[in-house]
Amino acid sequence: MKSLYFDKELTLREVPMPTRAPGEALIKVLMAGICGTDREILKGYSAFRGIPGHEFVGRVVECEDPKWMGKRVVGEINIACGHCSWCARGLGRHCPTRTVMGIVNRPGAFAEYVALPEANLYAVPDLVTDQAAVFTEPLAAACEILEQLTISPGTRVAVIGDGRLGLLVAQVLKQAGAEVTLIGRHGSKMNLAKTWGIHVFNDGTQEFAASSFPLTVDATGSPGGLSEALRLVEPRGTVVMKSTFHGAANFDATKLVVDEVTLLGSRCGLFAPALDLLKLRRVTVQPLITKTFPLNQGLEAFEYLNQNSALKVLLDMR
Amino acid sequence: MKSLYFDKELTLREVPMPTRAPGEALIKVLMAGICGTDREILKGYSAFRGIPGHEFVGRVVECEDPKWMGKRVVGEINIACGHCSWCARGLGRHCPTRTVMGIVNRPGAFAEYVALPEANLYAVPDLVTDQAAVFTEPLAAACEILEQLTISPGTRVAVIGDGRLGLLVAQVLKQAGAEVTLIGRHGSKMNLAKTWGIHVFNDGTQEFAASSFPLTVDATGSPGGLSEALRLVEPRGTVVMKSTFHGAANFDATKLVVDEVTLLGSRCGLFAPALDLLKLRRVTVQPLITKTFPLNQGLEAFEYLNQNSALKVLLDMR
Repeated sequence: MKSLYFDKELTLREVPMPTRAPGEALIKVLMAGICGTDREILKGYSAFRGIPGHEFVGRVVECEDPKWMGKRVVGEINIACGHCSWCARGLGRHCPTRTVMGIVNRPGAFAEYVALPEANLYAVPDLVTDQAAVFTEPLAAACEILEQLTISPGTRVAVIGDGRLGLLVAQVLKQAGAEVTLIGRHGSKMNLAKTWGIHVFNDGTQEFAASSFPLTVDATGSPGGLSEALRLVEPRGTVVMKSTFHGAANFDATKLVVDEVTLLGSRCGLFAPALDLLKLRRVTVQPLITKTFPLNQGLEAFEYLNQNSALKVLLDMR
Repeated sequence: MKSLYFDKELTLREVPMPTRAPGEALIKVLMAGICGTDREILKGYSAFRGIPGHEFVGRVVECEDPKWMGKRVVGEINIACGHCSWCARGLGRHCPTRTVMGIVNRPGAFAEYVALPEANLYAVPDLVTDQAAVFTEPLAAACEILEQLTISPGTRVAVIGDGRLGLLVAQVLKQAGAEVTLIGRHGSKMNLAKTWGIHVFNDGTQEFAASSFPLTVDATGSPGGLSEALRLVEPRGTVVMKSTFHGAANFDATKLVVDEVTLLGSRCGLFAPALDLLKLRRVTVQPLITKTFPLNQGLEAFEYLNQNSALKVLLDMR
């Protein structure tokens, strides 16, 4: 089958079909999204070798439990052992022996087919298009903030970064009742956010006053975002760090300690609430798709993403 | 009066007596403790100029409210405006226009006399010696963790750093019901902790296994402590950062995000619970005093602290 394969560099490569382990389904990938983490993998993040890709929607073509046959599905990306204390607490996302599709020791979705445990699958409601369903994983990651924190109605939140993740996080917090300010540098992206009732602030030309928000979210995907999120948070406030990047972060330890700030790492989330938001159209994802490439133009798709103005770029395997 | 004065360098200097503002008491300092923050100030922390010192016990010699006259007191170091929303919430420690004695825009206690608002004073119970009372401020800082987090009985906690603050934090958490492991490099300090029923581990020779504790506390006072505290914490665990130092901290952002760790800055605490612990002898402070110097040997006292084996060094103005 055709795939994008990373081994020092990303290439378009013919590879053998995935082998389906017991309890797994074989899935024909329909569409896949390119994420910031994929681009970090190309820089060395997680020392991954193989087929990247963890945002996808597909159709089950082989399975153990017949109920999945032919179903359109998305899949939770952490493949947990199912036996340890983390798994027992429903936190397979933190299982110490887990693999992660396209990120840690497991082939991903930038290919014609992918295998995943049936336990990881979620059926996609008919109302949700392929283009929307492919956002389930990043939307779940945005929803994770709601699992970790209680957002009181009207809470003033700054989301730093007007990229793909920032626009999803801003919408998720807005629909949860927060008063959201998106801080970014791209007029077109912030204009989009404005149409959703989100305040916007361009920090390319001016600086927002320090210590202005009880909650800030770094969704920039770069080391500088944390410093800004920390600068903007009030004493005793919370900074949510959603950026994963390859390398060390640097921050003002004095501000963290003196202002008694809580810095909260936040990663993958639950798929069910994300699918609900898509089904109920409480978030808008369609305008986030800048361009769609067929799989055999996958390298061009990665090139294209280097443009600042690109939001979500999809691969289409249909 | 005699004082230690910092202006590019620390000198012993004759300065005018403090002027007592309305609502303030004039206090004859009895004893003062040298803190890690004082040593950071000498390196440039908080750009302080003047008399440092914020750990003290003294006796009121002039005051507005006669009830304070002649009383032996300790004093909360943050001098807040009393009117803002932070002050209204009982969080004068975060008042944006506050001064901080010996740290931010206000003379400290390394002198014969100091002036402080009467609202900041706490009478020292007779049972508490001068040598113990001088620990109220750092002990309050250790107790702050209990204000910020709920410690369930038996919670396994690693305290990193076997210095003054580490030994106080370990005791405070132990008496609150935690199962505490002190991780340090100094045999004599860790032997002391053992006598309090605290587990000890010398990380100078071997490395504790990663992801071993749901809660870790960085009390090293150095940038390296945070990395170790982060390495030792479990997924979804909490790292409390108690170190204040001059400069930026560096840490593994991937670990924070992927393991969804909470990093919590923690600074000054309430004096009342700290005085209670001293009165009820639930913590032991006497063995932490390595040496006591008269004020006019204050420069030698700072020199002496550069020895690794020194714990708390006091100045005696009695």
